[in-house]
Amino acid sequence: MKVAGKPHRTIWPGADGDSVEIIDQTRLPHEFAVARIGSLDAAAHAIRAMLVRGAPLIGATAAFGLWLALRDDPGDDALRRAGSTLIATRPTAVNLRWAVERMTAWLLPLAPADRARAALARAAQICDEDVEINRGIAEAGLRIVRAIAARKGAGAPVNILTHCNAGWLATVDIGTATGPIYAAHDGGLRVHVWVDETRPRNQGASLTAWELLNHGVPHTVIADNAGGHLMQHGEVDMVIVGTDRTTATGDVCNKIGTYLKALAARDNGVPFYAAVPSPSIDWAVRDGVREIPIENRSAREVTHIAGRLPGGDVAVVALTPEGSAAANPAFDVTPARLVTGLITERGVAEASEAGLRRLFPEH
Amino acid sequence: MKVAGKPHRTIWPGADGDSVEIIDQTRLPHEFAVARIGSLDAAAHAIRAMLVRGAPLIGATAAFGLWLALRDDPGDDALRRAGSTLIATRPTAVNLRWAVERMTAWLLPLAPADRARAALARAAQICDEDVEINRGIAEAGLRIVRAIAARKGAGAPVNILTHCNAGWLATVDIGTATGPIYAAHDGGLRVHVWVDETRPRNQGASLTAWELLNHGVPHTVIADNAGGHLMQHGEVDMVIVGTDRTTATGDVCNKIGTYLKALAARDNGVPFYAAVPSPSIDWAVRDGVREIPIENRSAREVTHIAGRLPGGDVAVVALTPEGSAAANPAFDVTPARLVTGLITERGVAEASEAGLRRLFPEH
Repeated sequence: MKVAGKPHRTIWPGADGDSVEIIDQTRLPHEFAVARIGSLDAAAHAIRAMLVRGAPLIGATAAFGLWLALRDDPGDDALRRAGSTLIATRPTAVNLRWAVERMTAWLLPLAPADRARAALARAAQICDEDVEINRGIAEAGLRIVRAIAARKGAGAPVNILTHCNAGWLATVDIGTATGPIYAAHDGGLRVHVWVDETRPRNQGASLTAWELLNHGVPHTVIADNAGGHLMQHGEVDMVIVGTDRTTATGDVCNKIGTYLKALAARDNGVPFYAAVPSPSIDWAVRDGVREIPIENRSAREVTHIAGRLPGGDVAVVALTPEGSAAANPAFDVTPARLVTGLITERGVAEASEAGLRRLFPEH
Repeated sequence: MKVAGKPHRTIWPGADGDSVEIIDQTRLPHEFAVARIGSLDAAAHAIRAMLVRGAPLIGATAAFGLWLALRDDPGDDALRRAGSTLIATRPTAVNLRWAVERMTAWLLPLAPADRARAALARAAQICDEDVEINRGIAEAGLRIVRAIAARKGAGAPVNILTHCNAGWLATVDIGTATGPIYAAHDGGLRVHVWVDETRPRNQGASLTAWELLNHGVPHTVIADNAGGHLMQHGEVDMVIVGTDRTTATGDVCNKIGTYLKALAARDNGVPFYAAVPSPSIDWAVRDGVREIPIENRSAREVTHIAGRLPGGDVAVVALTPEGSAAANPAFDVTPARLVTGLITERGVAEASEAGLRRLFPEH
């Protein structure tokens, strides 16, 4: 998608042939900065410290991380160790493990001397595949938006609520939840996006708002608390969220707070969709609430926040009294019963095992 | 309740005999500061700018505001104008209108020369009544906490989630939702409070955390997004929230986001209570979602936030990209069907017209 009119991806091989470059998302929306990743450790740090985030982009970054590791040591042990290091950075997103395991399975049969070059090619391939998947999701989701627009008629905007950032910044390009939004907007449909700010890390207020603003899509940032009220008053036509992991039965693990929006959508008859690239489906898990490990992140993400001072500098300020504890579970699970449909690259699936297996019979 | 070991109310007549003093809640939790209110305009400003907030405290402040107005001009017109000015400051809380109308009905029959002195006495009476009401709520709610503690047994803490600040800072003293919590804690029961930070104004993170910390009640601040996840995992035994207005049918209007917690509580079998002082019941309203006007506050409360810099100074930082719009509905309505019970000063009522009229047959 575009930044200041120029097309961008979120990750790309560095011009020096020796690194990979990323948009440092910890600096957004206050500053657009590119960071260079030149080693496995730098890749692991970028994932852990959330310079990159979003399940698909984490997977792509890990793939490049393996390449960087293999340049130093292309042996079997080094490959496995690098994979473990990368998988340990974030426990919830399944794409990370998927990318590492897929890369490892590709690379292990090769002669060590050939592995680094192959890893680079395969990482690039994972990126291109991600973009293709998102195109498929955009197309499938666009049909839903179009149907709502037709029902509303007379050029009334379709009001779409989204939580967190499952935008192009969470992927290599296009985004998952934002795919249908960009497709609708670019295709001339009127859409308006309610952007949940998404505490505690504010990915909505800082990333989704920033990318919608850059692409010219009308949007309004709201506190996470506001969505239920808006739905009660008919101000939301549909919800689209991303997913960090979706179970074989259609439970959707996504950013903390997603479950609350799904409950409100159900209570008000608002359709609730998750945009689900197939690499984020965990076919081995059946009960999302019981089985998916939920990452507990630092309490400091709740007690402190970064923002722009009037002069333009970015400062971190404390929000709570000194001495109050804080907890920070990063994801929750929305049970399949609350999900209207899963928008995949092969079309919209019912949120159930039967629905998913119909579209993905190979699993 | 206590601040640094010393008992405090939130509002009291100034020692100069010429003003009323309040805790300036916009400075918490970073600084404990007392503000002097010496005129009707200052009282209206304190309510509008939220130096005082919370339905009961707003009512008390308005009562003192009428006293300050009558000192300058005790005539009928001035009294009515002052009442209108005060009612216009915040449209949602019903206590404000209740306090102004009650004061006006008391004062109009008096000779103008006697009004100011009578207003001061009546304002003090409204404050004392508020404290008595909160004692009643605390006692009724304590029975619920005690029953949960007995069921959990073995000294396991009762985990109570609350949203916003319906604490002593929202009232004259004791608080509504916090009444049962303080009563349980002071009575030797183990309680632990999940404090919703309550974006956008963060009354939970800044006020509820501060008052629980000062009183020594164990608590953990969480993002508003986290409550549903905690309930899914059995980490919440009950929810208690306050109310800005409760309808004759038991719909609860409270800080934005309350409705989402009520939905999650229902979905997980967690009891959901509102602490309802009877002055916050609007007997004239039957459908909360349709009839209660919801205040839309400044977008800046969403796009900017105040916090403490490392050096201790308070700074305001911007969270969103320049150019993104924001919306800020301040309250939502939780339908009676989601409410386990209304904890009033006369006991716990079923959230229905029959339930409320049984306890308040005079209405």
